[in-house]
Amino acid sequence: MSAIPPTDLPRHAADLLEHVRGGAPRVHCLMNTVVQKLVADALAAAGAIPSMTSSPEEVQAFARKADALVVNLGTLDASRREAIALAVRAAAEGEKPWVLDPAHCDYSPPRAAFAQELLALGPAVLRANAAEYALLRVPDEVVAVRTGKADRIAFAGAALAVKNGHPLMAKVTGTGCLSGALIAAFLAVGGDRFAATASAMLVTGVAAEIAARQARGPGSFEPALLDALAALSGDDIIQHARLGDEQG
Amino acid sequence: MSAIPPTDLPRHAADLLEHVRGGAPRVHCLMNTVVQKLVADALAAAGAIPSMTSSPEEVQAFARKADALVVNLGTLDASRREAIALAVRAAAEGEKPWVLDPAHCDYSPPRAAFAQELLALGPAVLRANAAEYALLRVPDEVVAVRTGKADRIAFAGAALAVKNGHPLMAKVTGTGCLSGALIAAFLAVGGDRFAATASAMLVTGVAAEIAARQARGPGSFEPALLDALAALSGDDIIQHARLGDEQG
Amino acid sequence: MSAIPPTDLPRHAADLLEHVRGGAPRVHCLMNTVVQKLVADALAAAGAIPSMTSSPEEVQAFARKADALVVNLGTLDASRREAIALAVRAAAEGEKPWVLDPAHCDYSPPRAAFAQELLALGPAVLRANAAEYALLRVPDEVVAVRTGKADRIAFAGAALAVKNGHPLMAKVTGTGCLSGALIAAFLAVGGDRFAATASAMLVTGVAAEIAARQARGPGSFEPALLDALAALSGDDIIQHARLGDEQG
Repeated sequence: MSAIPPTDLPRHAADLLEHVRGGAPRVHCLMNTVVQKLVADALAAAGAIPSMTSSPEEVQAFARKADALVVNLGTLDASRREAIALAVRAAAEGEKPWVLDPAHCDYSPPRAAFAQELLALGPAVLRANAAEYALLRVPDEVVAVRTGKADRIAFAGAALAVKNGHPLMAKVTGTGCLSGALIAAFLAVGGDRFAATASAMLVTGVAAEIAARQARGPGSFEPALLDALAALSGDDIIQHARLGDEQG
Repeated sequence: MSAIPPTDLPRHAADLLEHVRGGAPRVHCLMNTVVQKLVADALAAAGAIPSMTSSPEEVQAFARKADALVVNLGTLDASRREAIALAVRAAAEGEKPWVLDPAHCDYSPPRAAFAQELLALGPAVLRANAAEYALLRVPDEVVAVRTGKADRIAFAGAALAVKNGHPLMAKVTGTGCLSGALIAAFLAVGGDRFAATASAMLVTGVAAEIAARQARGPGSFEPALLDALAALSGDDIIQHARLGDEQG
Repeated sequence: MSAIPPTDLPRHAADLLEHVRGGAPRVHCLMNTVVQKLVADALAAAGAIPSMTSSPEEVQAFARKADALVVNLGTLDASRREAIALAVRAAAEGEKPWVLDPAHCDYSPPRAAFAQELLALGPAVLRANAAEYALLRVPDEVVAVRTGKADRIAFAGAALAVKNGHPLMAKVTGTGCLSGALIAAFLAVGGDRFAATASAMLVTGVAAEIAARQARGPGSFEPALLDALAALSGDDIIQHARLGDEQG
């Protein structure tokens, strides 16, 4: 369970965001090719330093230089599987936190099986939507994020719902992948993995709400989301936070 | 030939767009890596559900879950060829329509040869620019779209020109690929493949004209195009449609 | 050394930009998958014609059709290495200029070694940031660009600093890669490789400054940068240029 009570989470999230901006953690991303650019830009907007190679020859060098890792299973092929295995091993050796995002594993049984194997290798966090989540058994030591209208974050018997966010997120490919990468950035600077995970989801959701006010539709929402991530203040987070128990 | 007379096409396109929004068809995209994100966002903006993997291990599972397929030959390599062959077979087995976009086949003879082979496997529609189109022999049972200043759609002896569109489209990589994916989305909900194809081209062209009014250049045109696709009304289509005979 | 004195460079850059717009040179890009779309859009915004395949089967056909080449080492794998070797050979055979961008070679010793091998094959220009640059020995016949707060361009004993640019560039993944591609476009139309390189860096930096005025953050900066590249006038370049000696 987290040492941070839910009422303190918005302030904690504000502090962690400042630590990301000040510490500029390196986040290496095994990311599907579709959303590499958006995820890199979101990490940079939040203050982290992204890297993206999925080449088996190089991924260990990049993972060793990184402070945290996000492993997204989108656009998975044999070479990417190999790269993921190598990167996860480098993360484990360096005791660096990593996030598993089993993107679209509900479409493909081999992808779901691979996700289950990876869960046994000790990710700090699983981030999945309801359809993906339903297929996986999450070990006790993994923080489990199930996204949806409210995002549920569960760990060690405790659970929290982050109710922030905006429907336009579902119209822009990669906003979920983006939140997985931000979790990795927050884990890299934060000691409490439950609180760091909830903070990253809260920051993503509040930024999305602020972005939606500027947007004329899904196209203009995307740059507005990056602008909002870069400009987000601690007061924005505290004013907008809507948290609840696991029933959301 | 189409059962829809040209004068009824704008109303038909408006109806089909509502069917896409209501039915949320799944469109699997074998798409060059350059434009995967734009095409996914455009499908989502129009109301469809995109998926994008090109991994041979997984593409059949994705193609079977999809309602239509678009096969784009950009950034083609051996693995992508294999994935395309598998996806096309899954589409044929499921009697699902698919669109062939032989992107840049005028640059590369093996790509043109591969496009010709694929034309023999029964796509519903070929979408090509003039240089690509000139290299290919289109079977009678395939709706043929030749894009240009006006887009010419031909099938079974009939032809129609869609004169909508905007020069900024040519300055944004992927707007052609995007229209191919929208054709697949419209085929997934529409019975008449000629009318569905013409409708998708009309929707793309009208959205581009509306977007251009918001744009300060090619950079701001792209998000504006996605916004316009999401917001497009039936009246927009009917008011802006400019159709002509095949001479354009 | 360049035949163009530094005081004449802004006017020269304005002329070269007009030649790019008028001549529409083809630039083939061996580009990391993360930024392919941004780089393609930037080339198109500036008036060039981009192509992007990294498939070994096809890259020679594309390189032969191109007027210049940019080789970026991001997201490097075995297939991409093979494609790069083939493309560089085609460029050499066609006496076409090419630009080497050893992206992130400071993260990965094999990538740095590969960059050094490529430098022996005769690129016209090396574009690298300080960390990448420090690892490489640049042959005398290569124009060397070291980016930073000011961009230093050195060749044959002469050096020039381009002080234009904006801090938001560092928050958008791919702005460095984009400048490498623009160098290739300018080389394709310009006789003097030192002046063409400096011109491309100047155009990028001035466009970034103009874009920053429109931007609310890194998200809106990116489309604004493309808009600025498309709209940039000779007077913009001449008014905004800030050049200096190599000390910057």
